[in-house]
Amino acid sequence: MGLREPLADLDDCGFPIALEAMGERWSFMILRAALNGVRHFEEFQSELGIARNILSNRLGRLVANGIMARSTLAEDRRKVEYVLTPKGLDLLPTMVALRQWGEKWGLGIPSSVVLVDKQSRQPVRRVRLIAHDGRELEIDDLCWLHAEDVQDVAMPRIKTA
Amino acid sequence: MGLREPLADLDDCGFPIALEAMGERWSFMILRAALNGVRHFEEFQSELGIARNILSNRLGRLVANGIMARSTLAEDRRKVEYVLTPKGLDLLPTMVALRQWGEKWGLGIPSSVVLVDKQSRQPVRRVRLIAHDGRELEIDDLCWLHAEDVQDVAMPRIKTA
Repeated sequence: MGLREPLADLDDCGFPIALEAMGERWSFMILRAALNGVRHFEEFQSELGIARNILSNRLGRLVANGIMARSTLAEDRRKVEYVLTPKGLDLLPTMVALRQWGEKWGLGIPSSVVLVDKQSRQPVRRVRLIAHDGRELEIDDLCWLHAEDVQDVAMPRIKTA
Repeated sequence: MGLREPLADLDDCGFPIALEAMGERWSFMILRAALNGVRHFEEFQSELGIARNILSNRLGRLVANGIMARSTLAEDRRKVEYVLTPKGLDLLPTMVALRQWGEKWGLGIPSSVVLVDKQSRQPVRRVRLIAHDGRELEIDDLCWLHAEDVQDVAMPRIKTA
C-alpha cells in the first residue's frame, strides 16, 4: 500500500475511543450482558458476579460515554434501568467480530451457544469487509486514499419524497 | 431474548483472547502498522515512536500468540521481518469495525484517510451483521440457540472435485 494511515498518531483513529468503551474486562462483560437483555443493577450483579462498587463505577462510565442510558421507570421511580443507547447498540458488529475471531483462532471449538437470526434460525455470517458493490474484500484488495480524493457514490443521501 | 450466553463465564467466549491480542495500546499500534505494510523492527520504531524494549516485548508477544511471524531474509540473514500470519490478518474486519465505530460516535468527523477497495476506489461498507441469506441484521433480529439445535445450512463443506 502506498499511502498509510498516520501511524504514530492515534488522535485521528477511532480505536482508542472504542477501546476505552469496551476494552476493559468488566465494561465488556457489562456490555455483553446488556446485549443479552440484562437491565437492572441487581441482575448485572448476580449474573456477572461483580462487586457492587466496580459495577457502579463501570455503569457510570458507560453512561458518561453515552453507551448506556440510566432511566427510572414511570410506575416505580425506585426502579432504575440501564439500557444501551444507539451508540452502544452499534458496538454489536464489533463484539460479534471479536467473538468470531476468538472462537476461530483461540478456542478452536465453537461456543456452546450460537448467535442466529430469528427468521431463518441460521448462524449469522462471519463478519467480513465488503465493498460498496457487495464483493468480499481481503487485505490485498484495500488501499488508503486521502479523504478529499474519494468520491463516495455509496454515501447514503437524504431521500426527497 | 430467551436463551442467554453464560454471562459470568468468559471461558466460553472468544473475546478475552482477542482482547489480549489487540486490546493493549502498543499491541494495537503495532498491528495497525503491520496492516499498513510495516515489517522491520527499525521501521516500527521510527513510525510509532515506541521505545525499543517495549517494541521488542510486544512483537515477542504477538509472535508467541501466533498473530505475527518472525522470519529472516534468505539473502541477508541479519534482516528480520515481522509479518502478520493468517490469524493476524483475520483481525482486519474487527479493527475496521472498531475504527468505523470510533469515527461515527467518537470523533464525529471522518478520518483524513479513507479505506477503499482498489478496484472501485470506493470506501468499504460499514461492517454489519449479515444473515446467511444476505439480509442485514439488527439486534432485535437475533437470538441464541444451543449449538446442538442449529442445523447450519451455510456451513462451508469440503468440495469433492
